[in-house]
Parts: sequence; structure tokens; C-alpha cells
Amino acid sequence: MTLIQEKVKQAIDILRQQEIDLWLTFVRETSGVRDTALDLLVGPADLTWQTALMLTRQGGRLAIVGNLEKESLGRLGVYDPILGYDTAVRDLLRETITRLDPQRIAVNTSRNNVHADGLTHAMYEILCDYLAGTPYAERLVSAEPIINSLRGRKTPSELARVREAVRLTDEIFQQTFDYIQIGMTELEVADFMQVQVKARGLELAWPAENCPAVNSGPNSPVGHSGPTDIQIERGHILHFDFGVKYEDYCADIQRVAYLLREGETQAPAEVQRGFVTIRAAIEAARAAMQAGVTGNHIDILAREIVTGAGYPSYPYALGHQLGRVAHDGGALLGPLWEKYGDSPKLQLEIGQVFTIEPGLPVPGYGYIGLEEDVVITERGAEYLGTHQAEMVLIQR
Amino acid sequence: MTLIQEKVKQAIDILRQQEIDLWLTFVRETSGVRDTALDLLVGPADLTWQTALMLTRQGGRLAIVGNLEKESLGRLGVYDPILGYDTAVRDLLRETITRLDPQRIAVNTSRNNVHADGLTHAMYEILCDYLAGTPYAERLVSAEPIINSLRGRKTPSELARVREAVRLTDEIFQQTFDYIQIGMTELEVADFMQVQVKARGLELAWPAENCPAVNSGPNSPVGHSGPTDIQIERGHILHFDFGVKYEDYCADIQRVAYLLREGETQAPAEVQRGFVTIRAAIEAARAAMQAGVTGNHIDILAREIVTGAGYPSYPYALGHQLGRVAHDGGALLGPLWEKYGDSPKLQLEIGQVFTIEPGLPVPGYGYIGLEEDVVITERGAEYLGTHQAEMVLIQR
Repeated sequence: MTLIQEKVKQAIDILRQQEIDLWLTFVRETSGVRDTALDLLVGPADLTWQTALMLTRQGGRLAIVGNLEKESLGRLGVYDPILGYDTAVRDLLRETITRLDPQRIAVNTSRNNVHADGLTHAMYEILCDYLAGTPYAERLVSAEPIINSLRGRKTPSELARVREAVRLTDEIFQQTFDYIQIGMTELEVADFMQVQVKARGLELAWPAENCPAVNSGPNSPVGHSGPTDIQIERGHILHFDFGVKYEDYCADIQRVAYLLREGETQAPAEVQRGFVTIRAAIEAARAAMQAGVTGNHIDILAREIVTGAGYPSYPYALGHQLGRVAHDGGALLGPLWEKYGDSPKLQLEIGQVFTIEPGLPVPGYGYIGLEEDVVITERGAEYLGTHQAEMVLIQR
Repeated sequence: MTLIQEKVKQAIDILRQQEIDLWLTFVRETSGVRDTALDLLVGPADLTWQTALMLTRQGGRLAIVGNLEKESLGRLGVYDPILGYDTAVRDLLRETITRLDPQRIAVNTSRNNVHADGLTHAMYEILCDYLAGTPYAERLVSAEPIINSLRGRKTPSELARVREAVRLTDEIFQQTFDYIQIGMTELEVADFMQVQVKARGLELAWPAENCPAVNSGPNSPVGHSGPTDIQIERGHILHFDFGVKYEDYCADIQRVAYLLREGETQAPAEVQRGFVTIRAAIEAARAAMQAGVTGNHIDILAREIVTGAGYPSYPYALGHQLGRVAHDGGALLGPLWEKYGDSPKLQLEIGQVFTIEPGLPVPGYGYIGLEEDVVITERGAEYLGTHQAEMVLIQR
């Protein structure tokens, strides 16, 4: 079974659980704006003309597509029947939906999860026009719960890919720690890491501008900004945020190292204290994560460990889901801030992969941020790959 | 000046011409669903939290962005001021728009052009919520005319990139004609072409599944389906649809060759007649193209040459714009079919790059489709690169 076949089968199970009669993905010219639901419904191929992919809770897998794309869609071995058209999709779509007579039609619109929000405003209007005069325009609901479950619950073959991405990311981190010399710039180190990614035939997990992020010392701007020409010095905390994509699945990992000054055999006490605090927050979060708890609960718990130790509250969520992209949407380990919508209120599910990534500044030294990738199993959350248990010490 | 700076400057000129006070691009989590207007407004970088990019006809270039992305957005040297926030964008956005007090606010929603349709339905609803109680929610208009002009009117540096993409595509076609042997499959030929693309450090202009399309003989499925294991035989028309992307700009070219049978020194009369018909349709279209005429006018003219010669009407538009993607949206050389919306009614503008790509089947031999890329200048339309004037004959 291909990954697409596996995910479509899983989607139909989810429709049954959620009592949704029809999940309608309605797209066009996907080389432009691309509904990410297509990644799981058709793979990387683009669809040119207005196309409707329809899964039903009875197991139906219908597609309506421009005639010139019937052949390629058919090769997936997923959709049957595939109905083609040349000039206008309207009547075929209207007739097909009328025949299915669904009570609830899920479409890809969501305020909370961008991956359930591939229906543009104009395509929504077009769809409502096509369904005008039928009862069906009134029966549209958000596909967010379907897509949250479908993207979140990794199948074994998806999980194997994430594990491999994590392993490869870790391997490149180890090489990088060996490579670093005093006086190198953040940009030089980032270049080295990107060369390692290319040499393995891999892609970066997010755009090259800030993959990796490299921050050396207290003056490097932390956040989603890229590496700079700041030089690595002894006494700096060196912070990385990096991940590779392996067969379409991502890792997203932060690591920290300390550049020992002459005479030092370990990091200064305040650096150590920062590291231990972040480590403790991550481990507490991981231990508390299990199916059924909300992501907000986990965020509060980890955040209190950091703020309770006297550090500022990090201005972002503790962790996000990980999969085909680094920020995979759905349930979030986050605070109840408006920008996060309802995502922090969702319950964790088995099969989801999360990052856990608290951080704090150590004045005069730099930024400590660790990020570990975990999967929710029936026994709770487990680290994917090796987690960073101790500060990496670099002596040059 | 960077390409982004060049296009933002051009955008402000277009706002003045079109008398739009404010162009608002409102996005979030663009590693998921990505508004393609961002390609010209920020480049490849992703924006994580709700972000508003605002250009005004007075030349204002404001941005509201999550604090962790202020630094990287600032590096573009485009937006000033850049206002940051941590938890909620609502108040800052509302205050900023109220201060600007625009009469018409263009947002990225369009039934006709996917590249002007990056605003998802949920983001549209969120925006209307944020503006509720102000006069501004009522002042939203489509940014389609702005984006049509901005993507369409290539700057000299954009045009130089397209030209180079065309040149490189043509170079790979020449290599391929030399490489072909009887008995090779379509897939083998496609692999060879993709290896040439990689060897030059280039990308494909559209997904690898059908870039190139390779069709050998009468039984190969034409359309957006990929190459098959059909073998190349003498007496086959060999048809290609292929393009490379050079520094983010695409070529999109179709070529045909004929595999001479023993004793033949040219293609059979019916193959020749098909070729000459397509050639004539392309040249007539090119000669008629100029600023101010509609794309539909050109489509009718070329289509009549093909149908007038007794061939069926090709079930697609004569040509589309070309740029950052192979199907670049906006004015279309197309028939007035519902699926094409209003795009065929738009007038051509100077600086636009179009494909011209009629096609026809020759029963028993295969498919003849040529596709040439042209630019509209003050003197009319000019071919970019070498056009195919004669059937390529392959003797093996």
C-alpha cells in the first residue's frame, strides 16, 4: 500500500468516527496556492483545473477532475470513479453531491490549523455558487477535526520517516560540533551544515534562510532570523535550531554547546543553571504528555518550571506538531494567546509527534534553547532519537 | 536593488495607476498554505504568525509581524516601519488601518487568478472580525488587478531570467534529440532529461511526475500524465512538454520529433500537414499579439486555423502566462469556458510573457503539440529563444 492509499484509508475511518458524510477537497491551479491536504490525498502532483476530491464515510472515493488529468490521477490507485470534464465542473459537481446527499460536508477551512485551511475565500464563494439552490451549501462544516486527526496520527511508515529525519539531523549536529573553531562566523557554520544536508541528498525542514539558525553569544538575534557574521568566541553559548526532511518528513531539533574559556572545565554556574532548567522543563513536559490531556496543560507545566526558576516566559508555544512540515498544525503545546486560536485546547492523540522547545537567555553568554521531538504512544510520550542530556562542551 | 525591492516599487506604481489606497496581504503559517504574492513581497522566507504586509499608494511600506520575525523581515530593506507583537495582532492591525484610513483596501482574493487568491476563507473571516465595528471591513476589494499587473509586467531582471530558462531548456532538448534510440521507453528519455537538469544545478518548472511529459506514438496518453514504459519506435511522433526553472523563473516548451522509418527521408504527408498547421497557428497568434488585445481574441484566431484545417479543437487554452511558475495566471489566451473565469477577457500588457501551445492528434502516428514562449513588447510579441520551425527528424 502506498502512503497515499494508507492515509486515504485512515481518512475514511476518521470520517466514520466523526460522523462526517462527505469530505470535499475543492482546489484548482495548485502550483499556485496549494491546499496541503493534497499531500495526503494525491501526493506532490499538481491539479490544474477545478478539482473535487470526495471521500465518504461509506468508503466512497470519488474525484471530479479536468479530462487531461484523469490518467495521472487514476495511477494513484485511490479514486474510483474519476469523472472528467472539459469546460465546466459545475454541473458534474452539483449532480454528484446531490446523488450522495450528505448531511454534513466537511471543507478545508479552519481558523486554527493552516493545514485544514486550504480553501481560499474565492474558491469558497465559487463552491457556494455551484451549490446555490440545493440544500448542500448550508451543510458545509470545517474539516479541521478530520485533518487534525489525519495529519496528527502518524502511520507506522510516516513515523519511520520522522525517526530517520531525527537520526540524520542528530548525525549532522555531531559532525558540526567537531567542525567548529574559534573565530568562525555563524554563517560559516550554517554553510557547513547545509553542505552536509546536500551531501546526503536531503532537503532542509524549513527555508534555508534560517535552517539552521545559529546563535553565538549574547549579541546574536534569537528567533526566526538567520545566522549572521558574528564570530564564535570562547565563553559563548552556541545555540542551533535545525532539521532535515527525509522522504517528505521533518525533524526539528535545537541544541546548545558552550565554548570553554581557558582554564574552564565546565560551563559557568549560570549557564549550567539555565541548561538544567530547560532540561527539567522538557523532561517534565514529556513525562506529563499522554493521550487525552490538552496541550495547554503541558505548556503551563513546562513554562512554570522556567518562570519559577526566575527566567522570563518564552514568547512562543512550548511545542508544535511535526510531520510533513516543521510546524504541522493541530493540537499545540501552547498558551491561550489569541494568535494560537483553539489549538492549545485540543487533546493529545496517540500517534502524534510533537516538539518540546522551551528556552531562556543567559545574560552575557547567550541563549539556551533545547528542542526534542517526541511521539505519543499508549505508554505516554517517547523521545525520537537521542535527547541532549548534558551541555556540549567545546574546547579549542 | 534586489528583485523584491524592484517589485515592491513597481507595486506602488500600480496602486497609483489603479487608485487603490492600500494593498493588504494577510497571512500566517506560510510553510503550510502559501499566498504566492509573498514571492514578490518577501521572497522565499516563511512567516509563522499572523502577518500583515501593507503597501499604500502614497508609497508606505508597513508590516505587522510576530516579534521573532521582525529581524529577518527587516533585512529585506523593504518594510519600514515593522511593527512587532507577541500574543495578538488584532489591535495593532486595527489601529494601523484606522490611522491609514483607506477608501479601498485590496486583499488577495480572486475567482480568476490563483496567484491573487492567497487569502484563505478562514483568514478572510478573521480579518473581517478584526475590522468589525470599523468602516474598513466594507472597503475590501480584490487585489486581482494589482497582482495581474505586478506578476505580468516582467522587470528587465525577471525577463533575463526567463530568457535564460528558455535557453537552458532548449539546450537540454538538443541533447535529448541526440540521445534518443529506438526501443528506449518514454520513462528512460524522461530520466535522461531530468539528469541533465540536475547536472546544471537547475530545478524543473513543474513537478517531476510529468516534467518532462514524453509521448511516443499514437497510444501514449497525452495531457498532464507522466511518461510511461511505451517504447520509441520508427514511425512514431515523439512529443515533449518540458521546462526548467532558472533562479525562480520558468520556461515551458513543447517540441516534436519524428522517427524516420526505413526508406523515409521526411515525415509522412499527414504528419507534415499536422506540423505545418500547428506552426501556422502559433505564428498567426504571435503576430496578432500586442498590448490592448484580449487573450480570447488570440485564442479564437489560432483555434480557427487548427479547426479550419479539419482537426479537432484542442480541449485547453491556447496559452498562459509564464513566470515564477509555469502557469502564472492573469490574462489568458483562452476560450470563454467557465473554468477559465474572466481571464480570457483581460487585455494583454507590455512585459507579459506567454506560452502559445496549440496541439492536434495525427491518427496512427501520435500527437503534435508545439509550445513557444513569447514576450509582449511595444513592437508586439517576440519569441524568447529559438522557436521550432521544422519537424525534428530522427534517423536511427
